[in-house]
Amino acid sequence: MEQADQQRLDRHFMARALALTRRGLGRSSPNPAVGALVVAEGRIVGRGWHVKKGQPHAEPLALAQAGAAARGATLYVTLEPCNHQGATPPCTQAILRAGVARVVYGAGDPNPTVAGGGGAFLAGRGLAVEAGVLAEQCAFEHRFFLTHITKGRPHVILKTAATLDGKTATASGDSRWITGPASRRFVHRLRGWCDCVCVGVGTALVDDPQLTCRLPGGRDPLRVIVDSRLRIDHRAKVFDPAAGGGCLVACGPLARPADMERLRAVGAEVLRLSPAAGGGLDLAELLDHLGRRGVIGMLLEGGATLAWGFLSQGLVDEVMYFFAPKLLGGATAAPMLGGAGVAAMAQAIELGAPRLRRFNPDVLLWASLAAPVDHAR
Amino acid sequence: MEQADQQRLDRHFMARALALTRRGLGRSSPNPAVGALVVAEGRIVGRGWHVKKGQPHAEPLALAQAGAAARGATLYVTLEPCNHQGATPPCTQAILRAGVARVVYGAGDPNPTVAGGGGAFLAGRGLAVEAGVLAEQCAFEHRFFLTHITKGRPHVILKTAATLDGKTATASGDSRWITGPASRRFVHRLRGWCDCVCVGVGTALVDDPQLTCRLPGGRDPLRVIVDSRLRIDHRAKVFDPAAGGGCLVACGPLARPADMERLRAVGAEVLRLSPAAGGGLDLAELLDHLGRRGVIGMLLEGGATLAWGFLSQGLVDEVMYFFAPKLLGGATAAPMLGGAGVAAMAQAIELGAPRLRRFNPDVLLWASLAAPVDHAR
Repeated sequence: MEQADQQRLDRHFMARALALTRRGLGRSSPNPAVGALVVAEGRIVGRGWHVKKGQPHAEPLALAQAGAAARGATLYVTLEPCNHQGATPPCTQAILRAGVARVVYGAGDPNPTVAGGGGAFLAGRGLAVEAGVLAEQCAFEHRFFLTHITKGRPHVILKTAATLDGKTATASGDSRWITGPASRRFVHRLRGWCDCVCVGVGTALVDDPQLTCRLPGGRDPLRVIVDSRLRIDHRAKVFDPAAGGGCLVACGPLARPADMERLRAVGAEVLRLSPAAGGGLDLAELLDHLGRRGVIGMLLEGGATLAWGFLSQGLVDEVMYFFAPKLLGGATAAPMLGGAGVAAMAQAIELGAPRLRRFNPDVLLWASLAAPVDHAR
Repeated sequence: MEQADQQRLDRHFMARALALTRRGLGRSSPNPAVGALVVAEGRIVGRGWHVKKGQPHAEPLALAQAGAAARGATLYVTLEPCNHQGATPPCTQAILRAGVARVVYGAGDPNPTVAGGGGAFLAGRGLAVEAGVLAEQCAFEHRFFLTHITKGRPHVILKTAATLDGKTATASGDSRWITGPASRRFVHRLRGWCDCVCVGVGTALVDDPQLTCRLPGGRDPLRVIVDSRLRIDHRAKVFDPAAGGGCLVACGPLARPADMERLRAVGAEVLRLSPAAGGGLDLAELLDHLGRRGVIGMLLEGGATLAWGFLSQGLVDEVMYFFAPKLLGGATAAPMLGGAGVAAMAQAIELGAPRLRRFNPDVLLWASLAAPVDHAR
């Protein structure tokens, strides 16, 4: 086959493997929601995705489905196969055993214990190995895992719904609803993909949100409230014991033990954070705690003050701004970001070129932080 | 010819005629910048666009270029041909004289003195007349003219450059530059297309803008400053006598005659406005004045208070929001819209679905007001 034809085929099958990752997203944490395909003589003979932590990885599932047809076939996998014993045996062993002739993978595995391992190991055993096919898309799809493995904390997506003039509520505090049904449905999907949803106490007090994923078959995320003095009412909807995923309240040094007990009594976990150098709470401490317990993706849903806290401490990885085609006006209406802000335009937090997506009638502007920087320290 | 083929051809040539309108835009006011094509046996044999008020319209220019080839040909014109004697003879007469067999036009002419006139007149003389081809695009391209003819005031475009978090300056007032060179270049093109550019005194004092069109061959717009108490310095750049287009300062009842003289001495026109019922100045009075002198398009460039004044008085027709991929934060940083705003979400000013356009790295969200409403009266 011509080289260009082979490259086109490789991209085609990798895109098909990528489509499988969505099936495990939000349930595989802290593992990546890898997708894998076995292709023999141009036909897909096996499909696999990582369904849940502790269960088999995508590669052995796809190989098992392919059975004898895997011998001499090509394995497409969105992330470099693992080469170490974890909860399950190394995928490289399953690949060798199945007699696969060629392995094509997307993003490299930056896991410090196996860096370069899986690909190099298989090449050393005589398999043809092709790395970096649709590498950027694969890295984007696995960004929760990649942020977690490299930084030890969850990947943080700041999500805000605003009017086209950048307001999140009227001057009197009315905020329901800014965006339309299509945007709101997508936010519920996001909650299902992220392990954890976080809001500040202001939002919790004003909106009394449930922070659950209200889609059929959806998985409720861990709900996190940042509330330095534990002002939240223990009868708030977020403590509803019927919701899955659990609830954690992060407080500061001045929180009273009686309030901590009050919230623990309704099943919430309470975590005391240190003050941050630049004011507010040390949110890196919160993220480190979450990272240690296997939370790899966080949806930060506001409000404006907490969002600025995360941003100014260099802890936001991407922003998802839903803009509704309406105007509220008002010099004192609620802004998208509060806090102190930066003093000069030259200190603005830079974002990459936004992706655009329509959720009629709204528009999503979705951008990664060019380089998360720490303005507070 | 099959009817579907004819319709496809009509749309093709109308799109070509539409492309000609840009050549006259900003110079033809208060006339529409019409584009016209003469097509004989599938070939373009004449092109015309309205270059300047007082000079020939697009139709006679295209017919003159076609000469004898116009006999039996089809004339494509973006707006219904005029049927009345103005600065120039009616276009319908030139069309009859040229012996054109068929006339295809886009938007209908709502001019009360000729409504339905041109098309009906030509059909009555035995020509084949096809109305409404690419009608929506043609109406959009001629919206300055259409707003002016139906409302007697200029079409108002509110243009704002903001960061993705909806700020137009840092808390300390730093606003240069929010957007990149591509966006700023497009704003200069807009200034060339609009007859008039308007800012509030706050913006004039802080930025000291020239408000000129700094593109090669560009035309400077009339520059309008809304300054109720005439606080502007008469040495401001906006009064630079080298710029074309002139300068008008709109003040309120409390402006001092001495300040009016001070500004007139540097060549500015001063117009005193009545107070508006809901506070601020009666901006409809300003627009009516401009409409009477043939200003058909206004680019409203800020600031946030004046923008809300126009919006709340129901005087904005579309918004052009340039968003730069950066974040400023700051609870007190300058918002995109100020003033009182609306009290409840249900009172939000509704916009149509936004058009999206990239001016890398920025994104333009461009929307028409669903129905300009008067919130102040």
